[in-house]
Amino acid sequence: MNVDDCKRAAAHYAASLVKPGMVVGLGTGSTAAFMIERLGERVAEGLDILAIPTSEESAALARAAGIKITTFAEHSVVDITIDGADEVERKTLHLIKGLGAALLREKIVAQASRRFVVIVDATKPVNQLGERVPVPVEVVPFGYEATAARLEAMGAKVICPRRKLTGELLTTDNGNRILDCSFGPIEDVQALAARLDGIVGVVEHGLFPNMATDVLVATEREVEQWTP
Amino acid sequence: MNVDDCKRAAAHYAASLVKPGMVVGLGTGSTAAFMIERLGERVAEGLDILAIPTSEESAALARAAGIKITTFAEHSVVDITIDGADEVERKTLHLIKGLGAALLREKIVAQASRRFVVIVDATKPVNQLGERVPVPVEVVPFGYEATAARLEAMGAKVICPRRKLTGELLTTDNGNRILDCSFGPIEDVQALAARLDGIVGVVEHGLFPNMATDVLVATEREVEQWTP
Repeated sequence: MNVDDCKRAAAHYAASLVKPGMVVGLGTGSTAAFMIERLGERVAEGLDILAIPTSEESAALARAAGIKITTFAEHSVVDITIDGADEVERKTLHLIKGLGAALLREKIVAQASRRFVVIVDATKPVNQLGERVPVPVEVVPFGYEATAARLEAMGAKVICPRRKLTGELLTTDNGNRILDCSFGPIEDVQALAARLDGIVGVVEHGLFPNMATDVLVATEREVEQWTP
Repeated sequence: MNVDDCKRAAAHYAASLVKPGMVVGLGTGSTAAFMIERLGERVAEGLDILAIPTSEESAALARAAGIKITTFAEHSVVDITIDGADEVERKTLHLIKGLGAALLREKIVAQASRRFVVIVDATKPVNQLGERVPVPVEVVPFGYEATAARLEAMGAKVICPRRKLTGELLTTDNGNRILDCSFGPIEDVQALAARLDGIVGVVEHGLFPNMATDVLVATEREVEQWTP
């Protein structure tokens, strides 16, 4: 199986966890897209669910797939959210997310969810978070240069600010900017998360400690299910 | 002296702390407006400064007063910021700010400032923060109902979300909402600040612990200067 086949396998397994009547958080990214597609097939077969998408992109995919959309105003508790991740720490299931720039909404939906299922291919698990990818940090546009300076003073190498492939500055769905911050392998994920939370101008960051209730890892042979 | 005279007295004293060549953070609100007006008079008399306003409102006042405006892209360190506050805790000089809805930019500018001068009238000092005013919490619009539920679970009475006098939902300069959260008198301001920082969906909050370097309190007789 190639990587896309692995992602699809994990996504289909995750979609099978969704039961009739559930409010479902829809993640963002290539793996989540396979899951939304599969949920759309189940809806066409009669599955009755309501979805809260974590991005405009996923909202568009859901609408195209015929999935009914709701909002937090109507449902403030989500039964299950299914989303991808950029790194998963093997021992703890702490995550780095947000390379797709949707981390804020993803985190809000995940935090409101009874069950938070993360689907990844076999390239995503690491022994220590930060080994391979930077931590995306969503910052308000006003004064982001000062915020970047503060992140660097904390030891981050800041690749700033993120641009689109076209070269334009990237703006998130919430009107903010993304600073990708390399900290190297992270010794204490919860401590770093708390320090990032404390920086004025930081709206959110891509560290998701103790949030995943299930991680589905698609290897070439099977889908492994990890729980904390 | 009435309250406005007191505010004006403190504001004029604060404006006298600004020296030629300084980058000056301009606060928001009625007391800050007196300070901007006074700085404009000093600029007309030849004072050469650059200002970073904390709101569109203060930017407009500064432009009208003939004060040159700069940005963080050009100056990431601010020499002095002068701003008002809604409550000042006597013993610690911790502040509650943001009833004017500009707390996020105010905090970013204050954090980047060498000196942070707070000007208040004599009605603002309290023995314990939270005695009289709620803590404004700036939250992203997406999922704010879930964020409000989380704040209530923390013990806040949430007056949500703030509306303009016209009844419309208030949107901050950063496109967010304000939830006013009453916690009553706050025992441990720094601990509460850290807990608020940790809530997903909270962009910033109106607790400013350990930030003021000077508090100028205008009483009927004089301007008192407090330092931590």
